Amino acid sequence: MKAISSQELATHNTKDDIWVAIHGKVYDLTKFLPNHPGGQSVILKYAGQDATLAFEPIHPPDILSAYLSPRHCMGELDDITGTPPTVKKEARADEQVRIAREHMPRLDEMYNSFDFESVAKTVLKPVAWAYYSSGSDDEVSMRENHNAFHRIWLRPRVLVNVKELDVSTTMLGAPVSMPLYISATALGKLGHPDGELVLTRAAGQQKIIQMIPTLGSCSFDEMVNTALPAQTQWLQLYANSNRSISENLVRHAEKRGLKGLFVTVDAAQMGHREKDMRAKYSMEGPANVDEQLGVNQDEGTSKYVSSFIDPSLNWDDLTWLHGLTKMPIVLKGIQTPEDAVLAARHGCAGIVVSNHGGRQLDFSPSPIELLPGIMDALRVEGLDKDFEVYIDGGIRRGSDIFKAIALGAKGVGIGRPALYAMVTYGDSGVKKLLQLLHDELVMCMRLMGAPTIGHITSRMVDIRNLKDHFVQSPLDYLSHYTYEQMLPRAHHSKL
Amino acid sequence: MKAISSQELATHNTKDDIWVAIHGKVYDLTKFLPNHPGGQSVILKYAGQDATLAFEPIHPPDILSAYLSPRHCMGELDDITGTPPTVKKEARADEQVRIAREHMPRLDEMYNSFDFESVAKTVLKPVAWAYYSSGSDDEVSMRENHNAFHRIWLRPRVLVNVKELDVSTTMLGAPVSMPLYISATALGKLGHPDGELVLTRAAGQQKIIQMIPTLGSCSFDEMVNTALPAQTQWLQLYANSNRSISENLVRHAEKRGLKGLFVTVDAAQMGHREKDMRAKYSMEGPANVDEQLGVNQDEGTSKYVSSFIDPSLNWDDLTWLHGLTKMPIVLKGIQTPEDAVLAARHGCAGIVVSNHGGRQLDFSPSPIELLPGIMDALRVEGLDKDFEVYIDGGIRRGSDIFKAIALGAKGVGIGRPALYAMVTYGDSGVKKLLQLLHDELVMCMRLMGAPTIGHITSRMVDIRNLKDHFVQSPLDYLSHYTYEQMLPRAHHSKL
Amino acid sequence: MKAISSQELATHNTKDDIWVAIHGKVYDLTKFLPNHPGGQSVILKYAGQDATLAFEPIHPPDILSAYLSPRHCMGELDDITGTPPTVKKEARADEQVRIAREHMPRLDEMYNSFDFESVAKTVLKPVAWAYYSSGSDDEVSMRENHNAFHRIWLRPRVLVNVKELDVSTTMLGAPVSMPLYISATALGKLGHPDGELVLTRAAGQQKIIQMIPTLGSCSFDEMVNTALPAQTQWLQLYANSNRSISENLVRHAEKRGLKGLFVTVDAAQMGHREKDMRAKYSMEGPANVDEQLGVNQDEGTSKYVSSFIDPSLNWDDLTWLHGLTKMPIVLKGIQTPEDAVLAARHGCAGIVVSNHGGRQLDFSPSPIELLPGIMDALRVEGLDKDFEVYIDGGIRRGSDIFKAIALGAKGVGIGRPALYAMVTYGDSGVKKLLQLLHDELVMCMRLMGAPTIGHITSRMVDIRNLKDHFVQSPLDYLSHYTYEQMLPRAHHSKL
Amino acid sequence: MKAISSQELATHNTKDDIWVAIHGKVYDLTKFLPNHPGGQSVILKYAGQDATLAFEPIHPPDILSAYLSPRHCMGELDDITGTPPTVKKEARADEQVRIAREHMPRLDEMYNSFDFESVAKTVLKPVAWAYYSSGSDDEVSMRENHNAFHRIWLRPRVLVNVKELDVSTTMLGAPVSMPLYISATALGKLGHPDGELVLTRAAGQQKIIQMIPTLGSCSFDEMVNTALPAQTQWLQLYANSNRSISENLVRHAEKRGLKGLFVTVDAAQMGHREKDMRAKYSMEGPANVDEQLGVNQDEGTSKYVSSFIDPSLNWDDLTWLHGLTKMPIVLKGIQTPEDAVLAARHGCAGIVVSNHGGRQLDFSPSPIELLPGIMDALRVEGLDKDFEVYIDGGIRRGSDIFKAIALGAKGVGIGRPALYAMVTYGDSGVKKLLQLLHDELVMCMRLMGAPTIGHITSRMVDIRNLKDHFVQSPLDYLSHYTYEQMLPRAHHSKL
Repeated sequence: MKAISSQELATHNTKDDIWVAIHGKVYDLTKFLPNHPGGQSVILKYAGQDATLAFEPIHPPDILSAYLSPRHCMGELDDITGTPPTVKKEARADEQVRIAREHMPRLDEMYNSFDFESVAKTVLKPVAWAYYSSGSDDEVSMRENHNAFHRIWLRPRVLVNVKELDVSTTMLGAPVSMPLYISATALGKLGHPDGELVLTRAAGQQKIIQMIPTLGSCSFDEMVNTALPAQTQWLQLYANSNRSISENLVRHAEKRGLKGLFVTVDAAQMGHREKDMRAKYSMEGPANVDEQLGVNQDEGTSKYVSSFIDPSLNWDDLTWLHGLTKMPIVLKGIQTPEDAVLAARHGCAGIVVSNHGGRQLDFSPSPIELLPGIMDALRVEGLDKDFEVYIDGGIRRGSDIFKAIALGAKGVGIGRPALYAMVTYGDSGVKKLLQLLHDELVMCMRLMGAPTIGHITSRMVDIRNLKDHFVQSPLDYLSHYTYEQMLPRAHHSKL
Repeated sequence: MKAISSQELATHNTKDDIWVAIHGKVYDLTKFLPNHPGGQSVILKYAGQDATLAFEPIHPPDILSAYLSPRHCMGELDDITGTPPTVKKEARADEQVRIAREHMPRLDEMYNSFDFESVAKTVLKPVAWAYYSSGSDDEVSMRENHNAFHRIWLRPRVLVNVKELDVSTTMLGAPVSMPLYISATALGKLGHPDGELVLTRAAGQQKIIQMIPTLGSCSFDEMVNTALPAQTQWLQLYANSNRSISENLVRHAEKRGLKGLFVTVDAAQMGHREKDMRAKYSMEGPANVDEQLGVNQDEGTSKYVSSFIDPSLNWDDLTWLHGLTKMPIVLKGIQTPEDAVLAARHGCAGIVVSNHGGRQLDFSPSPIELLPGIMDALRVEGLDKDFEVYIDGGIRRGSDIFKAIALGAKGVGIGRPALYAMVTYGDSGVKKLLQLLHDELVMCMRLMGAPTIGHITSRMVDIRNLKDHFVQSPLDYLSHYTYEQMLPRAHHSKL
Repeated sequence: MKAISSQELATHNTKDDIWVAIHGKVYDLTKFLPNHPGGQSVILKYAGQDATLAFEPIHPPDILSAYLSPRHCMGELDDITGTPPTVKKEARADEQVRIAREHMPRLDEMYNSFDFESVAKTVLKPVAWAYYSSGSDDEVSMRENHNAFHRIWLRPRVLVNVKELDVSTTMLGAPVSMPLYISATALGKLGHPDGELVLTRAAGQQKIIQMIPTLGSCSFDEMVNTALPAQTQWLQLYANSNRSISENLVRHAEKRGLKGLFVTVDAAQMGHREKDMRAKYSMEGPANVDEQLGVNQDEGTSKYVSSFIDPSLNWDDLTWLHGLTKMPIVLKGIQTPEDAVLAARHGCAGIVVSNHGGRQLDFSPSPIELLPGIMDALRVEGLDKDFEVYIDGGIRRGSDIFKAIALGAKGVGIGRPALYAMVTYGDSGVKKLLQLLHDELVMCMRLMGAPTIGHITSRMVDIRNLKDHFVQSPLDYLSHYTYEQMLPRAHHSKL
Repeated sequence: MKAISSQELATHNTKDDIWVAIHGKVYDLTKFLPNHPGGQSVILKYAGQDATLAFEPIHPPDILSAYLSPRHCMGELDDITGTPPTVKKEARADEQVRIAREHMPRLDEMYNSFDFESVAKTVLKPVAWAYYSSGSDDEVSMRENHNAFHRIWLRPRVLVNVKELDVSTTMLGAPVSMPLYISATALGKLGHPDGELVLTRAAGQQKIIQMIPTLGSCSFDEMVNTALPAQTQWLQLYANSNRSISENLVRHAEKRGLKGLFVTVDAAQMGHREKDMRAKYSMEGPANVDEQLGVNQDEGTSKYVSSFIDPSLNWDDLTWLHGLTKMPIVLKGIQTPEDAVLAARHGCAGIVVSNHGGRQLDFSPSPIELLPGIMDALRVEGLDKDFEVYIDGGIRRGSDIFKAIALGAKGVGIGRPALYAMVTYGDSGVKKLLQLLHDELVMCMRLMGAPTIGHITSRMVDIRNLKDHFVQSPLDYLSHYTYEQMLPRAHHSKL
């Protein structure tokens, strides 16, 4: 392989001729540039430079070979010198993180999933926190996902023998210790050096299923190799515009023994996540990227639709997917009863009702709110047998799982909570989180008078207000500020 | 009795061989350890030590003999020396409490039940405050209990002669000065040296009923002995896995003249109260308890279900209970119309609609919200005659009592408000609280045009919104923070 | 008249023998003590002392002769010396008020009724502010009164000729410049040395009606004498247990030319106003009053029902009232359709739908919410002709007046807003307030396409949500505090 | 033209004889004074002075000749000396603005319309910010306009081919790049030296329509001359009491090629905008204006209705309007289905559902809430063909545009957002804002499964709660302040 000097590398530094060094190899990314899922500007910042430090935390090691043909590798970098300026800013952020980590509370002080999240905010680098925590636009759907569970109340039955309690169930035929799986999330190495492998190990130990992401920062095979012998894993798929890339991935997954193919259908375009954008801007600063890109603003957002996620994917493509694999196919991101029925009619084994954690279309309703209508539609059409409905988004308590089961879900997925546990306490954190959720579910079932998953019925929940979205009328500040608030005695310090 | 030295005591300091000294006697708690209602770790902290200072505030003096067979008493401690480290931390908290108590407001500044609560927060030790004030999970049900009363509005009738006003009534046949009783609560000595006896005395003086708790920090007989000659008391029962313990208690209670047996049915497992857990952790610090216990995390929460509260208790056990006593049996913790009907069908004299003060299952609805549906179901089934329905949870104002009566309750129970009055001003405090509630009820009835309890009808309340749970949609912070709030003139300091 | 020394006065200082000096005369108040509307303790503080400074601001000069028989006047005080301690505390408060008044904004900076209220809070003595501003219990009804107007939206019609606009109307036959009157409120001199006369003058000048209070701090005749020749006034009546006192007042009022008798029916007992109680306590401090009174706490609140307001007043007494006067009788404080119908059937000329400004029964609904149901009931019974329905409570904007008219009110009364304007800027303040409300009503009518009061119809308001009381579910603080709020760019100072 | 000295000018300084110099010419404004849309007092401040500096930022250069007959020009000022005191206060405000502008963020940090608004608040002079940002009365309608969009949720369809996306449409027959126009707003030069021309240029470049205001600070011809050759513009009209002024304007507009006449019908009187009034007061201070004006307060607000906006305009005048022009006539400010139907019956080409950005009648509902009822009424009457319905008010996100289209709007107008972009970053700002809204709309349509405007249907939105106005019941502060809020672990700094 040809040796390339830093000097030579530095001459390929424009959008029409861009070389970047990663892990000692030099790549010509000129053609790839418009298709980068993370946008063009982040790559342009490293035009003609070594981008290894920026690349490593968020990409799996084998992604270059999967998405770039070998002819784009121009040779090997013969030296690695100097520190690019963006790396200095990173270094300061790293130092802050180091100090925060020294002051972390002990793991046994974590009593619920919110504790993990609140600690994660203090120990993650700003860009990592922003990437994990942001939702699209006003983040209304993101918050609504958990919020909606607060509109469901319980109808506990008493004097039921609940001495023996069993929360185990099955998912797509596989036995699991509780009706919960870890959903696919991207860029795990942003928050933990082992990335998604932490989730693989914890899922295996706790006997639940992990859904392997297309965009993980660990490679697919790393995650499969890390699994225990009997551990069940699923594959999440973003259908690529280059269909052969997806075909290879699906066939390989089936060969490796994965038990379900979850096709994401709610991401025809990446959502507009402002916290994430603002954090990146703050870290990396402005650039003359627009001029380099020669972006013609009149072209609008079509630029942003990369080939990674094919916006032309439609129902006709189900035939293609069924032809690829015998794994059961589940559509992830269904948001209407109509589409749930279509999924069943197209031979899918199930659906995940999801709005992508509120990261795609703001004002898409919460999955738990959509669930009853979807179950009704499937029942009316006689399509609810041998068809499994999952939800993800907003699961934070054992009672949330209970409510989902009561309304017809076969199980629920969690995304961010697992990430926050992972980035704070690693394997122990995820294990602890799963135990907390397990214990909360056990407590809830015992106090509800439901000794097994099968005993949970829709009669046990009150969903009268589930579909009501209460937006407060604008406050009349004049009377609000004029009124003298009442205070209980202990607050009257002056008296 | 054998003399045991501190040195010998100190050698029995593991979970498999644990001795503890209390009140000068040494007990072998090895077998009892897994059944301790307060959990194993708190006992393990005193393994091989004198635990008297920690034991005393929260246990009745006769509890050891009731629950431990004599063979577990290994002898008498021959000396008491040194101060264990956890006691030092306690001492500091005690000093803070002492200072706070010096700055307490005068009793005549208490105008409502919230005043007592606000002062209690300042003068209780953190662990006591946490134990009394905490609810389960997100404490939604706990707060909802009072909140729900705010969804009921009144329909006052005017020009009714209300010169003579009478709020007296009966409960299970016993005459009472107002439709209010003091419900069973545990660990009274955490907040007052006399513990539950304060409540006994105040109830007697104000001619209302006290419900004696199974888990009081005073003994059953102390509470009965303290009562006035004509004072009515009830017994609250946690059915023990060891049925003979419960049988002894019930038979003894009937012999001592108690007039009602209130069986708790909403506690098949203890609720998950995070404030309480966090406060204990903060006081006692982390310990290597888990390792000692060798807790296998895979076993989940089944560990926590102690024999104190039998999770297998079910409707069939009503036969056993009826066989034990002629006292009227009332089920405490009913939360659905279905179970209310079952209670009546099983020969109970009544029920207490209750979610255990929001300390057990979060998202169990407030009792006041459940009341109309339960009364309707009983009426439809013709079971509402000679069947008394009580509620507890969230009663804070005289108008709350009025609303409960209007919706069909025979009376209401209070728990925390009485505790807060007790821990702040002792006997005078509880007496003052009861007078405030009495006076508020009188005022409410007079202004409603209802001169006696019998005049209060369901037509006097508007429950249109009672069952509506309004959860605000996620706020759009961008417009919230962009809008410039209007201020009345006096707030414009700069103008 | 006998001369009495301070020394002699000071010997009559117990509840069983209490003398007090006022304006140089000494009164034996022993028998009067239990009937004092302001409670016994405030008088006991001045037992054996000169109480003039405390008496003057809140009592009309002729009240002693109206309520005390001459034989209770024991003689004349022969000297006035010393300053009682409570007066010193008052002096400090006076100084603070003086400074606040020096910094008051100019009258032309008052743009709405809230501006007056916000300024009043800064310039009133704490006890005066507390007396005017407080409501009963949690002050829910008090705030709900204005709040409810925010649940009514408008349906404006356009392209109507509104060049000429007329807001005049009539009330009980008298022409008025706008559909608004000043309602009866007590203790005007607490906030302005001229007391209620300020309101009399402003009402006369603005051609609206003043309702003269039974408990004014100016005398009835002072208020009548101050009126302009053609000025219409009404009388508000608290029926006294001693009926002859009320009879004298009503007959005298008719003789002096008053045009309406408004009988208060929502005050069978005084409401429980905690801000007021707390402010008095703070000013006057604790006293051994209870011991002196020998209050037996078991007697409860019956003590507080004074003879000033007869709790036995009922529908049968309407005959008595009709026999006293030919003035139209209006019942003030009706809160249900049932009682509105009864009022019409008992020959009344109208009603005031009112919850006493939220000062009596908390959770009594707002008058504007009750109005449509009351009008419907009157219409169904054919009783809506020649029967005028007024509302008071919560009127703060011209659009509030519009909404009340649209829903059937003949007019609205204001209480606190007029007081706040009076205590801040005196005559000019009240005049300005009335002009602001007039101008807001004109603007509202013009933009609604309603050129006269007669053009205002119920089709112009949307009351879909009027009867909905939305109480937010308990907030989930864990997710609230974990979520990172979005901020618009200008708030990111650090970026 | 006659030369006039400052000394002579200064002698004409009362309301009955007022001269003012502007741009070197001296005008007699005595007769014009009562008709000034900005009120009389602002002119009186410059009585006998040079008012050029105050006049320039908010008036188009040709307004004097349009509204004042030549005989009111008394001559030319022969010198310009001194600085009036109000100008000094202005100078300080200018300096603050200059500093704020130096610290403005970069344009590429603007991610949404709220960012522009938040920055505008920091860089505008207080009077300019107050004028743009204020609404009428409590500003409830103003905030409700955007708020209401939060009560509409989306029903996204998946697996639709959305690779090609087209947001173009037509408005009154003219092709536009997206369903959005810039609405008429007044006084653009308050915030940018080029005033409304900035909007003209940005609209032309982005291929959307600008509506030219009657009260712009640039002249009509300046705005038309600035337009690109193929650029479409509309005219907004306030009908003047002097009909010939309006006739001249409309005929001139048609001659200059404007394509639509938008007649404002919601402004029979100017709204009461308190922020605006307070800001002016703060800047200009109190004056003896009232005395000079000899305002008789009894006359009320009729004073404020100037001849600029004719309050007698009504449906009969439509005949007059149709006789003036062949431009399609659209009524701007329709707020009921009844008036929408009347507009169609009177031959209008469409309507703008609008409450004037919440600046006129408070509690007029939001346009988006009114839209479905208006579309239904038009459909029932068969009037929905060839009749275009627009809305303005509260549009802040691309999803707001989507929701309006789904509910039947042909397009939406924006006012304040364009102003805020204009006053912060000028042409680039408005361009960026329009691109952001375009891109948000594209993203929304793609994720909704709607590749063109024509694919957007009412089935895609959930308006269940659209008409519900939730006003929270008064908070019970006693329990609010007594409750100890739960905190996630990272917030427990003390632990």
